[in-house]
Amino acid sequence: MQIDQLTIVGVGLIGGSVGLAAKSRGLAKRVVGVGRDERTLSRAAAGGVIDSFTTTIAEGVAAADVVVVCTPVDRVAADVLTAVRGAPPRAVVTDAGSTKGNVVRELAGQMPAGGAHFVGSHPLAGSEKKGAAFAKADLFQDRVVVVTPTADTDPEAVSVVDLFWLSLGARVVRMDPFEHDSALAFTSHLPHAAASGLAGVTPPGWLNLTAGGFRDTTRIAAGDPDLWAAIFEANRDATLAALDAFTGRMAEFRAALVQGDRDKLVKWLADGKRVRDTLG
Amino acid sequence: MQIDQLTIVGVGLIGGSVGLAAKSRGLAKRVVGVGRDERTLSRAAAGGVIDSFTTTIAEGVAAADVVVVCTPVDRVAADVLTAVRGAPPRAVVTDAGSTKGNVVRELAGQMPAGGAHFVGSHPLAGSEKKGAAFAKADLFQDRVVVVTPTADTDPEAVSVVDLFWLSLGARVVRMDPFEHDSALAFTSHLPHAAASGLAGVTPPGWLNLTAGGFRDTTRIAAGDPDLWAAIFEANRDATLAALDAFTGRMAEFRAALVQGDRDKLVKWLADGKRVRDTLG
Repeated sequence: MQIDQLTIVGVGLIGGSVGLAAKSRGLAKRVVGVGRDERTLSRAAAGGVIDSFTTTIAEGVAAADVVVVCTPVDRVAADVLTAVRGAPPRAVVTDAGSTKGNVVRELAGQMPAGGAHFVGSHPLAGSEKKGAAFAKADLFQDRVVVVTPTADTDPEAVSVVDLFWLSLGARVVRMDPFEHDSALAFTSHLPHAAASGLAGVTPPGWLNLTAGGFRDTTRIAAGDPDLWAAIFEANRDATLAALDAFTGRMAEFRAALVQGDRDKLVKWLADGKRVRDTLG
Repeated sequence: MQIDQLTIVGVGLIGGSVGLAAKSRGLAKRVVGVGRDERTLSRAAAGGVIDSFTTTIAEGVAAADVVVVCTPVDRVAADVLTAVRGAPPRAVVTDAGSTKGNVVRELAGQMPAGGAHFVGSHPLAGSEKKGAAFAKADLFQDRVVVVTPTADTDPEAVSVVDLFWLSLGARVVRMDPFEHDSALAFTSHLPHAAASGLAGVTPPGWLNLTAGGFRDTTRIAAGDPDLWAAIFEANRDATLAALDAFTGRMAEFRAALVQGDRDKLVKWLADGKRVRDTLG
């Protein structure tokens, strides 16, 4: 795959890594960054993350072949719409947001006919770190990217998006956007809430009595509160379903402990171990 | 510190690491392992973890200067009592269990007068791995060991135990055994239950949609179910208190999400982030 111009809207950790990966692999001849803050963009350009930049989406996408929208999930739909309207009809627009159903809902009936195509994506890669300063050229290497076409999505555009992520070293999984959100509620959003809840409930005076277990279990609680609040709201129903399943499971643990039922406790723990061992 | 004979009761990951650490640092002239399974002990001896072994505690401690009991928490008190009864009066017995109050309760009124002294310890080091094959000479390096004397504990014996762990490279914190248990319920036992609950509630078909966050948050769910069931039962009341605090905190998250209260959600996440950031 060879792209003349790749435009990245939102040059943070993910957007910056898309830029670095595309440039280091020679995937794009020209990488244009779009953002709100000229100083941040200018630093990203100086760091070789992007070739040039603008603070206007319409300007940044006017000559783009591929556009990747990497803004927070509550801005993705609006930025995609602006990109689709401003890009050439041949262009393909995708995103990198953690939630997919909200974008489908928000874009419903709004896409201009005969314009650039949009296909949702979610690279399962990231970090509790924030900003293009933490971008890495190999962030997507061997990672899963979920591509989420709907019944209305142009099949050729889907292939372009598949190929784009494959070219950055990722593995591509195709999924319905709403099924994606149900799954990610369990595999990403609930764990984030639980990690944050664990950290938030721990008296700071006892932090010197933590070891690797606490450190790992709560690592993602250091993530950006604004970004994550937007993710939880964008995937509210599925998050609530996952949370209620988790709360029910913790109630089983509590009951076994109160009853002093050792066998039940061991089985409950063994169930969790079996799932975790599957991951390796 | 120089010990003529160090005896380790329970030569698993922790006991084996005590042996390796003591030998590699020249802390003990002779390290004797006590266990139930001759084959396991024989493999540990072949691996240089211990110098010799026996399957009888009384025999293993008869000439010991320091004894470390590294058996599961529901066997610690009984093994400590056997060790105290069989060891020379000059000997100091400690343990490495994750719970301390249960040992104090179980030993109350049982310690022979004029015999060896017991001081509880808990090295905050470990792994979801099991067995002496995973033992490491540097497991305690820069780790915290909580030493938990009571009002009845011999002060000289406490100093010996402090010095023992310091000699293995650890940092020593002294704490009341019951306060230890309250703290560890938050910093270790609750996180383990939550990690296991998260893993247990995740549909295995969606595990291909996990990334580093899920992996870290659930890592300790791979721990041994029997060992952990014993820990939860030994520290039942404090675990229930921590669990109820966590459940309450997750209910706040749920309420903010249902209400669509972005500010409350961001604040809730920021509270967790602040605690986690303190850890670094």
